[in-house]
Amino acid sequence: MKKHKILNDPVYGFITLPYGTLFDIVEHPYFQRLRRIKQVSLTHYVYPGAMHTRFLHALGAFHLVRQSLDVLISKGIEISEAECEAVCVAILLHDIGHGPFSHTLEHTLIQVHHETLSLLFMQRLNEEFRGRLDLAIRIFRNQYDKPFLHQLVSGQLDMDRMDYLNRDSYFTGVSEGVIGYDRIIKMLNVRDGQLVVEQKGIYSIEKFLIARRLMYWQVYLHKTVLAAELMLVQTLKRARHLIDRGETVFAPPALAFFLNQTITADDFIGRRDELLDHFARLDDTDLASAIKAWQTHGDGVLSYLAWGLANRKLFRLRFLDGPASAEELAGWRQQLNQSDHYPAGCEDYFLVTGQESNTAYSTFKDEIRILTKDERVLPMSQVSDFGVRGTSVTKYYVMYPKGLDAEQ
Amino acid sequence: MKKHKILNDPVYGFITLPYGTLFDIVEHPYFQRLRRIKQVSLTHYVYPGAMHTRFLHALGAFHLVRQSLDVLISKGIEISEAECEAVCVAILLHDIGHGPFSHTLEHTLIQVHHETLSLLFMQRLNEEFRGRLDLAIRIFRNQYDKPFLHQLVSGQLDMDRMDYLNRDSYFTGVSEGVIGYDRIIKMLNVRDGQLVVEQKGIYSIEKFLIARRLMYWQVYLHKTVLAAELMLVQTLKRARHLIDRGETVFAPPALAFFLNQTITADDFIGRRDELLDHFARLDDTDLASAIKAWQTHGDGVLSYLAWGLANRKLFRLRFLDGPASAEELAGWRQQLNQSDHYPAGCEDYFLVTGQESNTAYSTFKDEIRILTKDERVLPMSQVSDFGVRGTSVTKYYVMYPKGLDAEQ
Amino acid sequence: MKKHKILNDPVYGFITLPYGTLFDIVEHPYFQRLRRIKQVSLTHYVYPGAMHTRFLHALGAFHLVRQSLDVLISKGIEISEAECEAVCVAILLHDIGHGPFSHTLEHTLIQVHHETLSLLFMQRLNEEFRGRLDLAIRIFRNQYDKPFLHQLVSGQLDMDRMDYLNRDSYFTGVSEGVIGYDRIIKMLNVRDGQLVVEQKGIYSIEKFLIARRLMYWQVYLHKTVLAAELMLVQTLKRARHLIDRGETVFAPPALAFFLNQTITADDFIGRRDELLDHFARLDDTDLASAIKAWQTHGDGVLSYLAWGLANRKLFRLRFLDGPASAEELAGWRQQLNQSDHYPAGCEDYFLVTGQESNTAYSTFKDEIRILTKDERVLPMSQVSDFGVRGTSVTKYYVMYPKGLDAEQ
Amino acid sequence: MKKHKILNDPVYGFITLPYGTLFDIVEHPYFQRLRRIKQVSLTHYVYPGAMHTRFLHALGAFHLVRQSLDVLISKGIEISEAECEAVCVAILLHDIGHGPFSHTLEHTLIQVHHETLSLLFMQRLNEEFRGRLDLAIRIFRNQYDKPFLHQLVSGQLDMDRMDYLNRDSYFTGVSEGVIGYDRIIKMLNVRDGQLVVEQKGIYSIEKFLIARRLMYWQVYLHKTVLAAELMLVQTLKRARHLIDRGETVFAPPALAFFLNQTITADDFIGRRDELLDHFARLDDTDLASAIKAWQTHGDGVLSYLAWGLANRKLFRLRFLDGPASAEELAGWRQQLNQSDHYPAGCEDYFLVTGQESNTAYSTFKDEIRILTKDERVLPMSQVSDFGVRGTSVTKYYVMYPKGLDAEQ
Repeated sequence: MKKHKILNDPVYGFITLPYGTLFDIVEHPYFQRLRRIKQVSLTHYVYPGAMHTRFLHALGAFHLVRQSLDVLISKGIEISEAECEAVCVAILLHDIGHGPFSHTLEHTLIQVHHETLSLLFMQRLNEEFRGRLDLAIRIFRNQYDKPFLHQLVSGQLDMDRMDYLNRDSYFTGVSEGVIGYDRIIKMLNVRDGQLVVEQKGIYSIEKFLIARRLMYWQVYLHKTVLAAELMLVQTLKRARHLIDRGETVFAPPALAFFLNQTITADDFIGRRDELLDHFARLDDTDLASAIKAWQTHGDGVLSYLAWGLANRKLFRLRFLDGPASAEELAGWRQQLNQSDHYPAGCEDYFLVTGQESNTAYSTFKDEIRILTKDERVLPMSQVSDFGVRGTSVTKYYVMYPKGLDAEQ
Repeated sequence: MKKHKILNDPVYGFITLPYGTLFDIVEHPYFQRLRRIKQVSLTHYVYPGAMHTRFLHALGAFHLVRQSLDVLISKGIEISEAECEAVCVAILLHDIGHGPFSHTLEHTLIQVHHETLSLLFMQRLNEEFRGRLDLAIRIFRNQYDKPFLHQLVSGQLDMDRMDYLNRDSYFTGVSEGVIGYDRIIKMLNVRDGQLVVEQKGIYSIEKFLIARRLMYWQVYLHKTVLAAELMLVQTLKRARHLIDRGETVFAPPALAFFLNQTITADDFIGRRDELLDHFARLDDTDLASAIKAWQTHGDGVLSYLAWGLANRKLFRLRFLDGPASAEELAGWRQQLNQSDHYPAGCEDYFLVTGQESNTAYSTFKDEIRILTKDERVLPMSQVSDFGVRGTSVTKYYVMYPKGLDAEQ
Repeated sequence: MKKHKILNDPVYGFITLPYGTLFDIVEHPYFQRLRRIKQVSLTHYVYPGAMHTRFLHALGAFHLVRQSLDVLISKGIEISEAECEAVCVAILLHDIGHGPFSHTLEHTLIQVHHETLSLLFMQRLNEEFRGRLDLAIRIFRNQYDKPFLHQLVSGQLDMDRMDYLNRDSYFTGVSEGVIGYDRIIKMLNVRDGQLVVEQKGIYSIEKFLIARRLMYWQVYLHKTVLAAELMLVQTLKRARHLIDRGETVFAPPALAFFLNQTITADDFIGRRDELLDHFARLDDTDLASAIKAWQTHGDGVLSYLAWGLANRKLFRLRFLDGPASAEELAGWRQQLNQSDHYPAGCEDYFLVTGQESNTAYSTFKDEIRILTKDERVLPMSQVSDFGVRGTSVTKYYVMYPKGLDAEQ
Repeated sequence: MKKHKILNDPVYGFITLPYGTLFDIVEHPYFQRLRRIKQVSLTHYVYPGAMHTRFLHALGAFHLVRQSLDVLISKGIEISEAECEAVCVAILLHDIGHGPFSHTLEHTLIQVHHETLSLLFMQRLNEEFRGRLDLAIRIFRNQYDKPFLHQLVSGQLDMDRMDYLNRDSYFTGVSEGVIGYDRIIKMLNVRDGQLVVEQKGIYSIEKFLIARRLMYWQVYLHKTVLAAELMLVQTLKRARHLIDRGETVFAPPALAFFLNQTITADDFIGRRDELLDHFARLDDTDLASAIKAWQTHGDGVLSYLAWGLANRKLFRLRFLDGPASAEELAGWRQQLNQSDHYPAGCEDYFLVTGQESNTAYSTFKDEIRILTKDERVLPMSQVSDFGVRGTSVTKYYVMYPKGLDAEQ
């Protein structure tokens, strides 16, 4: 066994991190920054224990990948040491491109998808590590001829999902998100280069899918969580609007950089090193600190939103039977306009409609493959007799200040 | 049962908060601020799960007080509804005076003890709530003639300790901190107005004391945690020094207020409302954001410390057999001076000696009272035959940059 | 709060049992006997931790009923103290009629359904308790005009199921059986006298249904568990056959009574007190002790089966695509006949075919009722968009000695 | 990785058992018999979940030994594959000599210590396995020149204790018995052939010692558990007395063999194979079945005791300040004699005095060795500043029927 460092994790007990490339990546400031980005954004407004970070999630997912590789090797699948390390690198870095408040601000602060950024970060690190990440990047991009290695990192049964369900369950206290990850991992195998699950694992897979679905509606898309996140988006939008208008808006330097200009994916590719460094300095704490300061800003819209976020006085979010009609929208806008409880011009920020959808399992994307006892490989939807239908559920919503209901 | 709100807590499952005064306190911005103050400061550098906040701790301690009151009432102890609510208020607010990074910065940012501030906050809230907190304040100050109510809030067996051991265990993953809190609570009783534990609970009490001791040395006073916290103190000291020298040091407004002047306890009493409001706007996020900004400050000492904290490149802390001698200190200072790896003038900040001590149980303070089967009340140290000796353990340490060892 | 006894339960911590009728029932020899009847028969051959008994299950189900009643009362549902106690009695006694190895031997040892026996036991106890169980019996039989009370005891969402899923999960270690029972209980309500679940609980209900399904196939109907249980049935059948033929077969007195004669439901009704007392003396230990003794019996078939059970040398059980054909059966019988590894006449005992089916949820029986936000009550299958289709799954199997495969 | 079988264990999740000698031992009837011997005798009368068996304990202890060996090997300690297997065999079989109700009946049913029997079983198995257990036996007897291997199996920090604390905690629900076994195992090392614990593990060791102490007084020596176990001893004593007097006492054959004659250690050595086989057929179920039958025996003393045990109507056990005086004893005997509630001649069976003691840690036996940071090896009692004093606690008791108190 190689020398290693032991990390404490309340979910799995101990995580063993071998010295060498993996250790060096974890030590890198780019990775350490994940300590300041919460895994589930503003979910803690409903589940106050959910303060856990992307740092521990990345390490947890790595831990499960390590276990999966051990299981596969013990079943005779050929995986070299270099391949093992590369998959581990890929999972450690799969989310490195996430900015503050993760998905919530993905298209508000910068116009770049987090996976694009993850890849840019990996390429930059690969230069710094002198090519030691070549294979990891190929696996991450699914350009390596052992697709199962990529599937451990990204797919309908990847270790990213496995870890976040375990972890978010643990920190929210929603015990129903608990999955039998160890049982699933023990059932993994490989056929024709593809990751498969041995048949007797199908009940655990069903359970995993239903747990994921439950966590979506009960936690990630909880209406109060959604409301908080939408308010955060509106707050940033307003701050940027004020800046565009030439007003002074306090921001810590790391945030100011991204508020004062619009950075596109092209910019990131053109000025990669400079922009990555700026991005790597930005995290949840800058936004939290700014929002608190904005409570006393002269602009009524900004201060109203900031005060609500800082003190958890959140707007109401209502699920609707379908998309809001133009008439309904007009009615709400008028109400906001006419009430003297709300600052002038608030209607573009205080009234939000939209939709959220979740697909517990997709039969369109690469399906989960089941290895039957007679050695056939079949898609999950064909083997399971229960619930695995790939239905997508969409919910429509409207959000507005709570007082509005009372005034009706 | 009164109307109530249900809160999710991974440690106890659900916490039931009745509407009325208790709910209103939790909703208050002073209390909501605790969401942004981590319970265990920089402990997450060693136990990355430990991101939990004082908000959830206060609610957890309240939950245990509620359970204790139910047990006592079921044993025939007379406690009125008003008294119940008052103890609950007192435990909810017992730590409201904590500033960012809690104990770590207690005497660095302001020269006021957190209990003094807790009391000021309570008094301020009492005015706002028009006297509804009168009884809670008397209980908190131990000025009420049922001492056991105060002892539930503050004492060697209070629900504050009970909750933080449970909670810090859960979030760090140090399972050895787990205590049989439910068993202890079931054994509580009252004699002559004093909180007592029925004799058959003594093994659980011993276990609680040893768990607390273990958590101190393994978690709260872990040498890497100590190192990080000492670095934080030094960083603030340097920032303040630079400001005193007239240099510009970035700080979010809430932090700037306290960095740019020295506030004393007298100030807090004299200008209570103004200063409490300023203090209530300050939390962990302002410091984290500032420290990141300071990484690029022109002052070498400040940027060195800030970079170390932001990227977890921590100094070495060594425990010593006794206090460091003047000669040793002089040697280390000289080394720091002569090395060209460290910025000039660093020796007052990069070299720290000190001591930490912990008393698992004190036989000097109010002892835990045991109710024997024949109805005598005896101090714990007299009943237990194991380990409950009240020994205090002191450890001396020195902290310096890791590179220094290599250069020796 | 009334005086009570506290029981230790690893699943829920403490169970509080009030003195009075409930305590007296638990103390009764009929109830104490449940300490010697394992909850899940021979499941421990696959999940060796699963040695837990019907005694603790009955108490656990009672504990959940108590919690449910508290929730309902707190929501303003009128339930008198007498009704509370009666439901608690009903759940404590709901399974009192189970004999050794529960379902496995239900129609082998005696020809009476366990619910019939439960009712007989209750009536007998009611006489002993001078009518104190009248209301409990009416609720148990669903003859009381508050149907929700019966539904807590028996229905698709009763506390019996809730407890056995929790408990069997805990003792088998199949974490996937874990359900959010506390969340479900908090969502219970009553409309028009019927038990309903508030809409926001539907994800938890879905999870509960899928967990139950998983436990069925992964635990209760695990093929090795089934094999062991079928062997047990065959062993008893052979022992009885030998006795009928006049041979001597050792049995402890309690077992001898039921082996030496055939007792019907009519007998039980006619000679209730005598037969209940005999039945109440019989439990798992008599069978285990007898089976061990039978290992050295002169009859080859009996000793072969008994040895296999005692030493966990179990037969093979194979799931088939459909019912075994007459030809297949004939083939297997012939093989058994011709092999000289097996005792003469074994084919009626060593070859078993059959089927098992499980319905995770039934849309035919009383459906789970969901209370929507706009106060309508709808059947679960109409509200849930996932998996709740009431499909029943049937699996066919054949069981035979393992050696047979090798000889083919 | 070698082929292996996976066993489900609620405490550790999965236990991996390699095919070969270890698997063959577990499959052996001698080992399978442990499925019918409860780990903690009659403890389930107080902690009803505690039905777990020696079978799972032996496998759990093996699992921890396997983990310890991995840790030691990863630290560079040389341990051959043969040595690994041998230690695993030794721990699997360390308790194979336990009879029904383990310690309770150790000197009642037969006059032989269980360790003597364990060794006889091992030697017998060694013949059957043609010498494959040679090394295991040497390690078990501490006759091998790597003492640390023996210390993993038997010592103050062996994996036997580690597992039973974990396991008994889990099944009783006494969470305070939980130990940080994984942390301790990670701290194991070897110096001069002796097992040592690295210094930073001392808090975990202290916790382990106190948890063990707590489990003794709160569980194993709980006064109600003691009472039940003493009643069981008296019951057997009476049954044997009746047999000696020529009366007929029902017993399943396996039990009858040992009741009808007195077997000594010499007998076991002289007629090893025959007696071991008889002994291996005897387990908890025979005793439970017999006791139930004895409830209706003509002898008043036997039936009184048997009825009490079967229905959990236990005698009272009182702890005394010191040994009972001759006068006190005489008084109690007289009371029993004169009361007409008790059968004639009961006083030799219904009145028991004695003592129990427990030493949480012994400074006389081989002490736990601590490896300091500067590479010295010191005894635990010298390094720890808390509680590790090796004090032995003795408690005196008297047991008698509950009714006796009322009659005073």
